[in-house]
Amino acid sequence: MTILYWLNVLGLAVFAISGALMAARLKMDPFGVIVLAALTSIGGGTIRDVILDVPQVFWVVETSYLTTIAVSSLLTMLFVNYINRLPEKLMLIADAAGLALFSVLGAQKALLYGAPASVAVVMGVITGVAGGMLRDVVCRQVPMILRKDIYATASMLCCVTYTSLLMFGVSDLVASLIGIAAGFLLRLAAIQWHLKLPAYHIAKRS
Amino acid sequence: MTILYWLNVLGLAVFAISGALMAARLKMDPFGVIVLAALTSIGGGTIRDVILDVPQVFWVVETSYLTTIAVSSLLTMLFVNYINRLPEKLMLIADAAGLALFSVLGAQKALLYGAPASVAVVMGVITGVAGGMLRDVVCRQVPMILRKDIYATASMLCCVTYTSLLMFGVSDLVASLIGIAAGFLLRLAAIQWHLKLPAYHIAKRS
Amino acid sequence: MTILYWLNVLGLAVFAISGALMAARLKMDPFGVIVLAALTSIGGGTIRDVILDVPQVFWVVETSYLTTIAVSSLLTMLFVNYINRLPEKLMLIADAAGLALFSVLGAQKALLYGAPASVAVVMGVITGVAGGMLRDVVCRQVPMILRKDIYATASMLCCVTYTSLLMFGVSDLVASLIGIAAGFLLRLAAIQWHLKLPAYHIAKRS
Repeated sequence: MTILYWLNVLGLAVFAISGALMAARLKMDPFGVIVLAALTSIGGGTIRDVILDVPQVFWVVETSYLTTIAVSSLLTMLFVNYINRLPEKLMLIADAAGLALFSVLGAQKALLYGAPASVAVVMGVITGVAGGMLRDVVCRQVPMILRKDIYATASMLCCVTYTSLLMFGVSDLVASLIGIAAGFLLRLAAIQWHLKLPAYHIAKRS
Repeated sequence: MTILYWLNVLGLAVFAISGALMAARLKMDPFGVIVLAALTSIGGGTIRDVILDVPQVFWVVETSYLTTIAVSSLLTMLFVNYINRLPEKLMLIADAAGLALFSVLGAQKALLYGAPASVAVVMGVITGVAGGMLRDVVCRQVPMILRKDIYATASMLCCVTYTSLLMFGVSDLVASLIGIAAGFLLRLAAIQWHLKLPAYHIAKRS
Repeated sequence: MTILYWLNVLGLAVFAISGALMAARLKMDPFGVIVLAALTSIGGGTIRDVILDVPQVFWVVETSYLTTIAVSSLLTMLFVNYINRLPEKLMLIADAAGLALFSVLGAQKALLYGAPASVAVVMGVITGVAGGMLRDVVCRQVPMILRKDIYATASMLCCVTYTSLLMFGVSDLVASLIGIAAGFLLRLAAIQWHLKLPAYHIAKRS
């Protein structure tokens, strides 16, 4: 499945860039940058594959994924000052693209291995959010999921849209693209206009 | 095994509530609440199943566990203000119940898959403490295990009591219940009276 | 392979001591000390084994590893004041030894299970850095990898040296020892003279 492969490469690249940018901001050295880029980009999919107990984790069997990460990290380091002059939102947008791509690809792989729809949604969310969560926890940043903007919600929207469309007989490719677009646009809108779902207000203790 | 199933559901529910309460306190949105509830409640058992290399992780094969988490999260969100008016200790007690239940269930599953007793104790502790640890690390709280009260100790007491009773020929059900009760009561006592084991005093450097 | 076994025991012991020392410094109780020692010492290898999908995680099949951790923790607790009077660098040096040993052993195990060289390097780095990273994240310390000194770099040097020497036909034992020595000495030099690779300077936003 060529498109699946390239979507995966794209997701890995954007997450690797988001990890490498964070590492560069924290003034990590070049090898630290590569390690953090790898953690961010293969973290989620690795957890998914291990839980699904697929015969081999995706980057063990297809090493071009590791090359993707190395190249993305190197390019980020080379152009870090140029990249950093772009609007501050860049990292949030890269993260949003990775989130949407990996959420749908995660759900897809779970279905491929015979998981029911509810498990596929959970797997999609894990694949989408875990890499960025690992990046933020290791770097002692506030995890994206704790920020007020819509984040887990966008990942769930991707997975639910994708699995629902499949049930209505839509082809896998079309369902994937619509699922990715739905979550990505929601997240972009949340970043742009600081959209948020209402949080549950807890009455102050007296 | 019906009782095993219901003990698991109970453990998942209390950990899901403890995760959902933490998320509500941090003003996460509804989907963030569900993600954190799931992380807290299936985190430990997932790590256990992956390490034991069981054919399928428990919630992949039995999706009613996911339903339990969704329902627990929703109920917590609906009644959050009511729940929050209950004594502050509630979350600690829910966490203690989850800790005791999951410790014994974790040791039990390890034995079921042929692990020796020492490995079963380690598996029990992982199952008991990992979910809450993930919750605390992602939410940037001080992990329970770092607080002064007896915590890892209670989990170990559960596992050692359970495996020892089995060796003395006690039936699995009775051993489970005594193991759960022992750790739960110890942890409750620690919460109530701030019991602690002596910590190793390190002499100040001059 | 006897030497492999003893190198593993040595790596486990030094990482267990580094975890136990950290726990003692944070005034955790004895069982908390053991849990943290175990997390630090078996964390990296467990992630490696789970990703490689080896039939059984190393400490599940060979319980003498758990005994090593228990003994190391107990000795650390007994002699904590004596150990603490040694130069402050001790924990850094123990960590460096564990890093070098586990990096090479991780790469070695990956090759044993048929992984290509690039995957073996990644596995080596995971095995080397993950345990210490888990220790630091759970204890809310700045992860070693974020500190300015050479850290991920030393782990990569171990793995690349080892796999390269194998390709040039050097025997496994010699390649292991040279790989371990290379990374350990580099890390010691970094600790001693605060060596660092240049970090990527990000121009301040105006």
